[in-house]
Amino acid sequence: MIKYPIQTFENSAELLMKALNDHDLSAISQALRPLNISEILEQLERLNTIERAVAYRTLPKDRAIEVFERLDAALQADLVSGLQEADVAEVFAQLSPDDRVALLDELPASVANRLISGLDEKERALTSTVLGYPQGAVGRYMSPEFVTTHPHLSMAETFARVRTHLDDAESVYTLPVTDSGRHLVGVISLRDVLRADDDALVAEIMKAPLSFPATEDVEEAARYCADAKVLVLPIVDAEERLVGILTVDDALQILEDAETEDAARSGGTEPLRRPYLATPVGTIVRARVVWLLVLALGATLTVQVIGAFEATLEQQVVLSLFIPLLIGTGGNTGNQAATTITRALALGDVRPRDFVKVFAREVRVGAFLGLLLGSLGFVIASLVFTVPIGWVIGLTLLGVCTMAASIGGLMPLLGKAVRADPAVFSNPFISTFVDATGLIIYFLIATSILGL
Amino acid sequence: MIKYPIQTFENSAELLMKALNDHDLSAISQALRPLNISEILEQLERLNTIERAVAYRTLPKDRAIEVFERLDAALQADLVSGLQEADVAEVFAQLSPDDRVALLDELPASVANRLISGLDEKERALTSTVLGYPQGAVGRYMSPEFVTTHPHLSMAETFARVRTHLDDAESVYTLPVTDSGRHLVGVISLRDVLRADDDALVAEIMKAPLSFPATEDVEEAARYCADAKVLVLPIVDAEERLVGILTVDDALQILEDAETEDAARSGGTEPLRRPYLATPVGTIVRARVVWLLVLALGATLTVQVIGAFEATLEQQVVLSLFIPLLIGTGGNTGNQAATTITRALALGDVRPRDFVKVFAREVRVGAFLGLLLGSLGFVIASLVFTVPIGWVIGLTLLGVCTMAASIGGLMPLLGKAVRADPAVFSNPFISTFVDATGLIIYFLIATSILGL
Repeated sequence: MIKYPIQTFENSAELLMKALNDHDLSAISQALRPLNISEILEQLERLNTIERAVAYRTLPKDRAIEVFERLDAALQADLVSGLQEADVAEVFAQLSPDDRVALLDELPASVANRLISGLDEKERALTSTVLGYPQGAVGRYMSPEFVTTHPHLSMAETFARVRTHLDDAESVYTLPVTDSGRHLVGVISLRDVLRADDDALVAEIMKAPLSFPATEDVEEAARYCADAKVLVLPIVDAEERLVGILTVDDALQILEDAETEDAARSGGTEPLRRPYLATPVGTIVRARVVWLLVLALGATLTVQVIGAFEATLEQQVVLSLFIPLLIGTGGNTGNQAATTITRALALGDVRPRDFVKVFAREVRVGAFLGLLLGSLGFVIASLVFTVPIGWVIGLTLLGVCTMAASIGGLMPLLGKAVRADPAVFSNPFISTFVDATGLIIYFLIATSILGL
Repeated sequence: MIKYPIQTFENSAELLMKALNDHDLSAISQALRPLNISEILEQLERLNTIERAVAYRTLPKDRAIEVFERLDAALQADLVSGLQEADVAEVFAQLSPDDRVALLDELPASVANRLISGLDEKERALTSTVLGYPQGAVGRYMSPEFVTTHPHLSMAETFARVRTHLDDAESVYTLPVTDSGRHLVGVISLRDVLRADDDALVAEIMKAPLSFPATEDVEEAARYCADAKVLVLPIVDAEERLVGILTVDDALQILEDAETEDAARSGGTEPLRRPYLATPVGTIVRARVVWLLVLALGATLTVQVIGAFEATLEQQVVLSLFIPLLIGTGGNTGNQAATTITRALALGDVRPRDFVKVFAREVRVGAFLGLLLGSLGFVIASLVFTVPIGWVIGLTLLGVCTMAASIGGLMPLLGKAVRADPAVFSNPFISTFVDATGLIIYFLIATSILGL
C-alpha cells in the first residue's frame, strides 16, 4: 500500500521503455498502472514528445486528467497537438482557471480561442479574469475560486458556507474575510472556525490579513507567501478588493521554476522550461549559444589587453604561465561574491539600497582573501621561480581578489536596480571586465617590479 | 489593515536603525509595532547580533515567541545567549519538537541538556523521538504531533477527533489513517471528511497514502512532498508505522535552504547559513577561502601545462593572446552543462543512471556549439591575424567546447553517484581539468598547424 518514490522507479522505467519500443499499448498501460500520479509524471517527463503522447493516451480518463493538470504547461501544449479535439476540450474544461491560462500561453492563438469559446459561461468568466492580468503578474497565477466569510457572520454560519463550497474552492482551510464592498478585512483559518464557539463572530476571531496586489510580480508574491508560512495568500486589486488567492502549493511551484531560472542564468544558460531529457538537443544549444557568444566576444577584450603587453611578454615569456591562474582566481572570487549577493537578493536579505553596506563588506572580504592567497602565491612562486616573480604573483593576487570581490558583489545589486536579472547582469560583466582588469593589474605590477 | 511587504519596509528600517543608534528602547519597539511577523523577521535578519538581541527584547511576549519560532536556528542560538535563562526555557517549551531539535543542534551541549531537562514529560518524549534520528534524516525535521483516524471510524467520529486535537496537532487538514498496529494505511483530507455523509466509513473514502521513510534524506522527502503537492507527507519507520508528518511549509523551508546551499556551492563558496548582512566578514571569508585555494592549486596545473609548451610560446608569443579566451570559453561551456545537469538532478529529471543519455546529448550539444564558435573564431582570427592562426583558434574552439560540455555534463552525475554534492564535485574539476585539457588541445593543434 505504501509507496516510496525510488523503489519501484527504475524497473517501471525499464518496463515502460520496453513497452514503448514494442509499440505494445497494453504493456505500456500496465507499466504505468502501479504508479501514483507523481511517479507517472516523472516517467512522462523522461520521454520524448511522441513517446509521451502514446503513453499518456493509455491512461484511464480520470488519471489522465490528474496527470495533465500537473504537467508543465509546455508539455501540456505538446500533448494537446496529439489529442482528439473533443478530449482536449474536456481536459481543458476540468483545469483550474490559472492552469488553463498557463496552458493558453503555450498554445497557438487559434487553438487557444477555440478552447476558450468551448467553455461554459462561468468558467469562461473565471478564465478571463485571470487572463486579464499581464504576464508575470501574480493575478495570472492566482485562483479566482475561493470561499469567503464576513465579519458579522458566526462560526456556525461560516462553517456552513465552507460545507457548501467544498467542491468549487481551491482551498477551504484559510478563509479570506471580506466586507460588503468585497474589500479584504481579515483572514480566518478553518482550524480557528472549528475551535471557537458556534455563535462567536468572525470579527472577534479573524486575524489581520496578509495580501498581495494582483498586478505585482508573481515571484515576489510566492516568496512572500512562503516566508509568511501561510497556506493561502489573498490577492487584491488596487482598491484592495479580494480578486483571488495564491495557494502555497502554487507558490512552491512558482519558486521552484524561479530557482531553476536563477540556477540556469548563473550558469550562463537560458532556462530550458522543460525537463532536461524531454528537451531536444537543438533547444539546449539555442539556450546556451547566445551566452557563449556574448562571453566569447567579451573575452576578446582580454586578447587586446595581452596584445597591448605583447612586448613585455616577449621579454618575459614566463609571465604567460600565470595568466590562467591569475584571471581564474579573479573570476572565482568575483563569482563567489556575485552568487552570494544574487541569492541574498532572491531571499530579500539584501536590497539594492544596501549598495554601500555590501561594497564595504566585499572589499574587506576580497582584501582578506587576496592577502591569504597572495602570501601563499609569493612563497610558492619565489621558491619555484624567482623572488621578483614571487612579488609579482603575490601583489597581483592581492589586487585581483580585492577588485573581483567588490565588483562581483556590486553587479547583482546594479542588475536588480535596473530591473534586470541579477545573475544575467553580473555573469558576463564579471567574466570580461574582471578578467581584463585583472590582466592589466598583472602586467602593470610585472613591468614595474621586473623593470620592463 | 492590509499589509503590503515593500511599502512600509524602508521607513521602518530607518526608524529602527535610528532608534538602535540612539539606544532608545521605546523608539525601537515603536518602530517594530506596525510590522507583521514576517516583516519583523526581515528587519531582525539585517541587524548584527547585539542589535538583534536588543530589538528582540523590546517585543511583547506573544510576538517575541512567534518571531523566535520563525528565526533561523543559527540566529535563535545567538539570541539564547543574550536572554535570561527563564525566558529561554519558556520560549523553548513553546517551540514545536522539530524546531526545538534544530535549535539544540546549534547550542553548546551544556545549554542543550539544561533546556531539555527543563521540559515536561510529554514534550521531552516528543523531542527525543525527533532527536533520535540522524542528522539530515527527515525524521529530524518531521513533527511528531498529528491527528490520525482509523478505517472503521465514521466521518462524524473522525471529525470529532479533529475537533479534540485542534491545538496539539501540527496540521488537521490532512489526516493519516492508521490500523490498530499504527501502520499507515491511507490518508483522508478534512475536505473529504466534511464532504462525505456523517456515517460513511473512513475506509470507503480514504486515498492510498504517499509516505516517506523517517531515516531517508530530508531534502528528498521535501522534494517528494512538493512534487506530490500534498499539504502533509506522512513519515514512517522501517515497519511502515506512522511516526510523524512533514508539513508543506516545513518542506518549503527545507527546499529553500537546500537551494541556497546549491547556489552557494555552484558559485564556489560554502553556504553562510545566515542572512548575508547578519554574517560577520570573517565567516564569509572562511566560507570562500577553502574553495579559492582548492581552485588556485588546481590552476597550478595550467601553469605546468603552459610551462611545458614555453618553447612554443617563445617562438609564437601571439599564441598567448588567446589563452584567456580559449580556456574561458571552455570553462563557460563546462559550467553551462554542469549547471543544467545539477539542477536536473535536484529536480529528479535525470538520475546517475542516465549517464549514457546525458553524455550522448552533451557531446552533440558541445560539438554543435564548438562548430558555431569555431567557424566564427576562424573567420575573425584569419582576418585580424593570419589564416593559420585562424585554423588554430577555430579547431581549438571546436575541440574545447565538445570536451568541456561532455565533461561538464558528466561530473554532476559522477558526484551524485559517489554521494557527493554534484555542484561541489563538478566545480573544481571543470575549472582545472577542463582548463588544462583545453590548453593541451590548443598547443597540440598550434604546434601541428604552425609546424613548431
